[in-house]
Amino acid sequence: MFWGHSMTTPLSPIIILVEPQLGENIGAVARAMLNCGLTELRLVKPRDGWPSEPARANAAGADLVIDGVTLYETVEESIADLQLIYATTARLRDMVKPVIPPETAAERLHQASLGGLKTGILFGRERSGLTNDEVVLADAAVIFPLNPEFSSLNLAQAVLLMGWEWRRQVLGKVAEEFMPAQSPPAERGHLLQFFTHLEGELARTNFFFPPEKKPHMLRNLRNIFERTKLTEQEVRTLHGIVRSLTRDG
Amino acid sequence: MFWGHSMTTPLSPIIILVEPQLGENIGAVARAMLNCGLTELRLVKPRDGWPSEPARANAAGADLVIDGVTLYETVEESIADLQLIYATTARLRDMVKPVIPPETAAERLHQASLGGLKTGILFGRERSGLTNDEVVLADAAVIFPLNPEFSSLNLAQAVLLMGWEWRRQVLGKVAEEFMPAQSPPAERGHLLQFFTHLEGELARTNFFFPPEKKPHMLRNLRNIFERTKLTEQEVRTLHGIVRSLTRDG
Repeated sequence: MFWGHSMTTPLSPIIILVEPQLGENIGAVARAMLNCGLTELRLVKPRDGWPSEPARANAAGADLVIDGVTLYETVEESIADLQLIYATTARLRDMVKPVIPPETAAERLHQASLGGLKTGILFGRERSGLTNDEVVLADAAVIFPLNPEFSSLNLAQAVLLMGWEWRRQVLGKVAEEFMPAQSPPAERGHLLQFFTHLEGELARTNFFFPPEKKPHMLRNLRNIFERTKLTEQEVRTLHGIVRSLTRDG
Repeated sequence: MFWGHSMTTPLSPIIILVEPQLGENIGAVARAMLNCGLTELRLVKPRDGWPSEPARANAAGADLVIDGVTLYETVEESIADLQLIYATTARLRDMVKPVIPPETAAERLHQASLGGLKTGILFGRERSGLTNDEVVLADAAVIFPLNPEFSSLNLAQAVLLMGWEWRRQVLGKVAEEFMPAQSPPAERGHLLQFFTHLEGELARTNFFFPPEKKPHMLRNLRNIFERTKLTEQEVRTLHGIVRSLTRDG
């Protein structure tokens, strides 16, 4: 089933809005998505609830997108079934994370789609964007190289630029063959289960000291494993390693 | 003076909105422009007048653009001092005109700017876009290769995509040297004066027959001369030819 999409219908990236505030903005996002041929929209805790009349009105006919919206309580749940995830952000604060421009992101998303992988792009709150803990969940941060003195995009504009770059990839290239790994890339949910397992054991063994450093240490730890693009098999192996190391002899 | 900008400060394309309806949209355009580093905005007969408080409010701080807006009564006047002009449109109706994608447009605009030429991009009314007679004034039509089943962009989104493509050119390339022609490209105002001259003489000599075909014939005529990218010297030559042909022996 995993490879079912690989040759005939490339999957499109899923757009994920984290705690969007205004229904109008969600509608404008839906319109920008459909302009670029993107159709799957996920919302994490929209402030004003869902469904939203302002969203539908502002979607200007992109009902296909509005009708298909799915809701999530947490960012982690919203990306659990995805295998390649990018986080759009205005800047990186105190974090070691690869940063790529939208064009590179679009190219990698498209190549992954051709290989049958499920991909997604995270967009943060209108005012404050994504938190560091949310950016950490992604494979890389996408930063738009806009006018450094005036770089704030509204939500729909940011989605439009990513959608546009993706569309340029789809239209502009003869589909290159994608070489899948031996074992498929891990679903994000499995990776998160591994983090929970590892971090639980580390907490039990007082790894996180002093306690106030724990959030920072956790982020660094997660970034290490995110960067390595683990396969399903490798995640299983890591679970085994942690179990083995914590066994009572 | 003409070449004064050529080596040090490449000129940016001027954004021209033809009869925009809502001040909010003009503001959103200003914001999208400044995001991409574009600063000069011209308005042809904005429906609700100018200045506009909704425009300033929706510009989200792009006061630099709003404060610099200039007003025009006609599209012809708004482009009279420009030398390379593109018209954005959703489709071409009954017209022979080169069509280019935004990326190509941006590349040519950037190269022209490096050569010190003044360039501009025309955007039409929110509902109906540009008329055929307005598209004819441009060197080429720009059509966005969006989802064919849902291709309607709002005004600010269209400006953002063009601005973005232009910015990618500016950032992504080492500035290539631009080879100016022997005589500089004609200012659009000079070309329009030539059309007026030529068309006046043709009307006097009953060229436009039957009368109901006149608009169509005029457009075809203009397209011929637009396509040839006339220099200042060539426009002067053409004036001389018309004068000579119409002399009473």
